[in-house]
Amino acid sequence: MSLNTATLIYLDHAATAPVDPEIVPLMVPFFTTRFGNPSSIYQIGQDARAALDQARARIAGVLGCRSSEIVFTSGATESDNQALKGVIAAWRRSHPGTPHVITTAIEHHAVLHAADALEADGITVTRVQCDASGVIDPDAIAAAIRPETALISVMSVNNEVGSIQPITAIGAIARERGIPFHCDAVQSAGARSLNVDELDVDLLSLSAHKFYGPKGVGILYVRKGTPIEFQQQGGGQESGRRGGTENVPLIVGMAEALVRAEAHREEFVRFGASLRDNLWQRVSDEIPDAILNGPPLDGPRVTTNLNIAIPGIQGETVLLGLDMEGVAASAGSACTTGNSEPSHVLRAMGLSDELCRASLRLTVGRLNTMDQMADAADALITVVDRVRALSGPVATPR
Amino acid sequence: MSLNTATLIYLDHAATAPVDPEIVPLMVPFFTTRFGNPSSIYQIGQDARAALDQARARIAGVLGCRSSEIVFTSGATESDNQALKGVIAAWRRSHPGTPHVITTAIEHHAVLHAADALEADGITVTRVQCDASGVIDPDAIAAAIRPETALISVMSVNNEVGSIQPITAIGAIARERGIPFHCDAVQSAGARSLNVDELDVDLLSLSAHKFYGPKGVGILYVRKGTPIEFQQQGGGQESGRRGGTENVPLIVGMAEALVRAEAHREEFVRFGASLRDNLWQRVSDEIPDAILNGPPLDGPRVTTNLNIAIPGIQGETVLLGLDMEGVAASAGSACTTGNSEPSHVLRAMGLSDELCRASLRLTVGRLNTMDQMADAADALITVVDRVRALSGPVATPR
Repeated sequence: MSLNTATLIYLDHAATAPVDPEIVPLMVPFFTTRFGNPSSIYQIGQDARAALDQARARIAGVLGCRSSEIVFTSGATESDNQALKGVIAAWRRSHPGTPHVITTAIEHHAVLHAADALEADGITVTRVQCDASGVIDPDAIAAAIRPETALISVMSVNNEVGSIQPITAIGAIARERGIPFHCDAVQSAGARSLNVDELDVDLLSLSAHKFYGPKGVGILYVRKGTPIEFQQQGGGQESGRRGGTENVPLIVGMAEALVRAEAHREEFVRFGASLRDNLWQRVSDEIPDAILNGPPLDGPRVTTNLNIAIPGIQGETVLLGLDMEGVAASAGSACTTGNSEPSHVLRAMGLSDELCRASLRLTVGRLNTMDQMADAADALITVVDRVRALSGPVATPR
Repeated sequence: MSLNTATLIYLDHAATAPVDPEIVPLMVPFFTTRFGNPSSIYQIGQDARAALDQARARIAGVLGCRSSEIVFTSGATESDNQALKGVIAAWRRSHPGTPHVITTAIEHHAVLHAADALEADGITVTRVQCDASGVIDPDAIAAAIRPETALISVMSVNNEVGSIQPITAIGAIARERGIPFHCDAVQSAGARSLNVDELDVDLLSLSAHKFYGPKGVGILYVRKGTPIEFQQQGGGQESGRRGGTENVPLIVGMAEALVRAEAHREEFVRFGASLRDNLWQRVSDEIPDAILNGPPLDGPRVTTNLNIAIPGIQGETVLLGLDMEGVAASAGSACTTGNSEPSHVLRAMGLSDELCRASLRLTVGRLNTMDQMADAADALITVVDRVRALSGPVATPR
């Protein structure tokens, strides 16, 4: 495969990001010379333990929590599964009856499918709907609460349309009712605060590869006192909460990436907006019938996200065309290739199946440039013109 | 912390091993330039997908199975938990009554504590005892089988005393009775065959950091047709069997490490024996009351493992002394620091608590040299002399 990453215009940062090249050299020694097992008492083990402790403290600093409230995981999918299943398992052990979970129709599949698995095991689940822009109303969460509600799980930022959810307001509702509140904050790092007290969350999931750290490592924050059963038994690591030799190199890399994401957050937010707004300006000028999916650009929306429907096209066809032009983008989330189900998020927002399939997600990142926005817009316009010309009468002329 | 890895004599390869330095450069590009999400349809995603497919095929080659039978995990602890809990969940969905699991008293805690968790949820567990050398008798497994036995789980090589278990014989028993058979083969890579048909196993767990690959990544082999429910729901990765963005860099590194471990297996087995036998010769000459725990060196024992009890000493004290001399070893497994429970393996073999606490594990590896064996033996003899002198009347003179 010819892969020219030098000329690639990568616009799928919501799917994954490269590891910050300055972080790789921080991880490498933990593969080779500083390879000790943190559970070992000799120096090379304790050196790894110290690195792990330091990483945990740095992450706790960003989240405004105690180090002891951080559990390292293999990524947000594990964190989300652990949060939902662990809180429900604990509830079941201490309550009679059937627990109830409130989540939303626009969560990531890690939450939605974990909720499906719990439902198959007999619990009840309410999936609160969003508005037409992909935002959840806290009152709708409050209205869904039942006496047996055991958990509320709402994402911080939607991964497809970038809508920012009112986490603090939902947190206050959950707190008042004494219901544990989990937040999948995967798309939040570098975009909005991760302070767990500001957000008023009891559990929070993060994945390093969404903030320029490595794939395969993540965080579950668990507020002290939250009733939860842990799911992965083993050698007593993570204070007995998650067995398995700690992934020291990747945890060290994740901590550095998170500290950087937070330190440069305002700068990234502004930079993202400048790129994204410019891209949208160019695209909407040339494709006037393009529709912005999700909140307005100056509304409750992360500045890195653009999601557009272009009537008369198939998103997947345009993506392949863009790929030929050296532009990497996606339709909806990074779904499994060949999955042609329309996006559950866009559907929940009320889009027709046809418009769902005509949608593209373009998510900008730190390494993009303004020149790339011009080139990407040109590529998109070219490809859309080509696709519309080919598809003939179905095409909407511009 | 002053950490001189150049002069370190590392004798704890059963706890963890450094990543083969030739493998690190194979992983690094997947952090930075080849960072695509394998679920994405554009080139940089499909490049990652191709690397993942290739890694899977290489691993399947070593295991003698189909690529589709390999599930990538975050390590053997996840693999073990998934195997036990997933098979039991599937059994429960298709059978009335209470399932029964057969395992052994000398398994790794990832298996034993997963079995404990299942037991707390109402299943029954038989923990078959070993003989005085740490070997399981297949007849004892056969005798434990009940009509409701849903799973047998036996490790391939014990991590503390290196005893090789009769997996093929147990596999034949399980096969005849139609009971799924899981094998924690974490200590096997590079030591004995991993061919799943020779071993006659249905499920097999591996962890890359035990065979000179990275920490935080592992394998669960699942024979086609084995009834199992998968536990981590998410974006449909691993053919729907394990959600979460694939850890491409570490999976690529793991595949290379496993291929190397298998290609050089016989050579490593011989090399390990030469080092280990030399070390034991020196130690037993100078400390004549030292007791070899586990099978004889020429018996059913991996050639990298030495486990010795030295009457009158505290293992932990000697380990700290060895650490000062630049030798890294362990007592039992890489237990959490400060855990002073005597080894469950040595106890199962019938050792007194006092002898358990007087035991040390020394596990050699590829980068050790014969000179290091001489130095390690000298260090051990010096430290034991010092400890025995300090502990006065309790010491056994030599």
